[in-house]
Amino acid sequence: MTTVVNKEAQVLDLATAKSNIKAIKTEYYQIPLAEVLSDAKHGDHTHFELVVCRVFTQDGFEGVGYTYTGGTGGRAIYSLIEDDLKSSLVGQDASRIGKIWEDMLYKLHYVGRGGLLSFAMSAVDIALWDIRCKRLNQPLWQVAGGANSSTRCYAGGIDLNFSEEKLLNNIQGYLDRGFKGVKIKVGKPDYREDVARVAAVRKLIGKDIIFMVDANYSLTVETAIRFAKAIEQYDITWFEEPTIPDDYQGYARIAENTSIPLAMGENLHTVYEFNYAIQQAKLGFLQPDASNIGGITGWLKVADLAYINNLPICTHGMHELHVSLMSSQPNAGHMEVHSFPIEQYTTQPFIVDENGRAVAPNVAGTGVEFDPALVGPHLIKQS
Amino acid sequence: MTTVVNKEAQVLDLATAKSNIKAIKTEYYQIPLAEVLSDAKHGDHTHFELVVCRVFTQDGFEGVGYTYTGGTGGRAIYSLIEDDLKSSLVGQDASRIGKIWEDMLYKLHYVGRGGLLSFAMSAVDIALWDIRCKRLNQPLWQVAGGANSSTRCYAGGIDLNFSEEKLLNNIQGYLDRGFKGVKIKVGKPDYREDVARVAAVRKLIGKDIIFMVDANYSLTVETAIRFAKAIEQYDITWFEEPTIPDDYQGYARIAENTSIPLAMGENLHTVYEFNYAIQQAKLGFLQPDASNIGGITGWLKVADLAYINNLPICTHGMHELHVSLMSSQPNAGHMEVHSFPIEQYTTQPFIVDENGRAVAPNVAGTGVEFDPALVGPHLIKQS
Repeated sequence: MTTVVNKEAQVLDLATAKSNIKAIKTEYYQIPLAEVLSDAKHGDHTHFELVVCRVFTQDGFEGVGYTYTGGTGGRAIYSLIEDDLKSSLVGQDASRIGKIWEDMLYKLHYVGRGGLLSFAMSAVDIALWDIRCKRLNQPLWQVAGGANSSTRCYAGGIDLNFSEEKLLNNIQGYLDRGFKGVKIKVGKPDYREDVARVAAVRKLIGKDIIFMVDANYSLTVETAIRFAKAIEQYDITWFEEPTIPDDYQGYARIAENTSIPLAMGENLHTVYEFNYAIQQAKLGFLQPDASNIGGITGWLKVADLAYINNLPICTHGMHELHVSLMSSQPNAGHMEVHSFPIEQYTTQPFIVDENGRAVAPNVAGTGVEFDPALVGPHLIKQS
Repeated sequence: MTTVVNKEAQVLDLATAKSNIKAIKTEYYQIPLAEVLSDAKHGDHTHFELVVCRVFTQDGFEGVGYTYTGGTGGRAIYSLIEDDLKSSLVGQDASRIGKIWEDMLYKLHYVGRGGLLSFAMSAVDIALWDIRCKRLNQPLWQVAGGANSSTRCYAGGIDLNFSEEKLLNNIQGYLDRGFKGVKIKVGKPDYREDVARVAAVRKLIGKDIIFMVDANYSLTVETAIRFAKAIEQYDITWFEEPTIPDDYQGYARIAENTSIPLAMGENLHTVYEFNYAIQQAKLGFLQPDASNIGGITGWLKVADLAYINNLPICTHGMHELHVSLMSSQPNAGHMEVHSFPIEQYTTQPFIVDENGRAVAPNVAGTGVEFDPALVGPHLIKQS
């Protein structure tokens, strides 16, 4: 039996595609933070970098994609998009997102396999998804799966440099804003100080608020185990990045020695690294970041991997976009509302409802458009 | 019992160090290849990129470091050095290479963990080693270990696009130049064509020439096994990158099904990835490239890991530098003499002796200095 395919019709369809990419424009911003924020390994954050990639199609659509960093590498990401990716993207059918994603991955594979390439790919990929959603006239939460239109979330503090008093004031601020979950940084030189801070925060928030800790991979495996045991009594939802993300087996050793589930993901930049982490690190929660795992395409691959492995999918950073992705998934865990306030530079309000759930924007596209009046003053270069 | 440390003396020593970094200059070149060279996954190479990093110390030393790419990402590497690394390198003691290496790794960790950051780190690190050797007035092969002053090598062809006739002429050229080992690319759409090329090459070179094949991660695990079985009769020293470097367990499945040892390394950009590859991929040979594994510091860490795991250490690319590193190690395998002829742009001749061994330069430093008259015409930008 033979299936006859109407090849002529296919060829015509592709040749006349109006969704071809006509132009790409890139913008690089340095956005100052309201105050210096610190964690255990990255030190002081004074600003974040924002790289915006705009994709324009022949038939008049504009897709907005972006990535961000903690302060370094942004100009190299800009260079990858402008100098290496752009020329091979122009002319391609913007609707073939999977093909373009794979092309980017292998065109720059020798200098890639994660790292900065994943950030550059993310900015392009998010723009393509924005176009897809706008063409469908649907919001991202619907196109990406549609499980829900809102998601559980928590406020993620970057607060290791805060005094205990300031830490508690900051947490109280999160509660006042309606958050039902909070996360603090740990990784003080003496872990017993971290234990005291955890105890103070749990006392403040009471027993019903979800509470996580994040060591930004600063601890040895042995100290992580010792610390985890000491805070088990405070009902900790997860212990994030206890040790270096390269040491999956070290994570497993920690997981075997505490009842607190482990979480990681912001530093895993390929889908294969998530696969290894699932197989070997005994994680309780996965935290891919669409800005550095290859955009929405990469994030959804990890979400599928989480689903298949019976794990909740969570996120790191860029909550203004992740709110739609998390809402779309049946196995959504807890979305981080990150301390880099990207949402303050966009046109769409970021909403946490009365139940402490973040609400996905109900507009066609990803729902993330930058307000020129707000980001403009921070523009460093553009194409 | 207390150990009394003379703190004052230490402080004086560090404060008056004359080896502090005074300035860093970066150069970016695009160097055309004499002809188009192709492999199975990277496609056509028309040129390679060269990023040179020059480190100058207070007391008048200049160290030359560099990295290269197959054609993409070079300007992003330039940006990482100039925009992100330089400011924190100037003023540091150039002799504390290990500290500087670790600082670079963690300063850019969020956008790093391998990928492009490893290329940028490599260029800086090699310059620091050049200074160390010049200060000692010793050649690199001696400073890095001194096991030997020459090393076994082979000619690595990038020749998948060559007709069988041209392939054989190219191999004959390697033999005429005195090489005792050759490698060809495989990964044709029909693997049986690869088998025929392997048979033709073995017939040409006779039984005493070492012979490897390299698929540039283009095959499925199943095809790789089928192909490996078909060429076992031709005495193949190793089968390089049969499938994607992310699939360590896939490598193990191939290794379990053929008598040909597997090799990989050019696409592993952290020492942790080599650790996983050793533990899980059942490799016969490791091939770190000092231009993308974090320079000489990174390469030596992998060489130690190979030694401890009873594996031969090999290399990919930049043979004009690797000749000194390979010579220095007791467990050296076979050094690739790569088809990107970087050595043609340097002041030091690249020598293969009458036994087919590559001879390490006997000059103070790494032995790699670029000739301005040769690279100058290809300069795109510099700081």
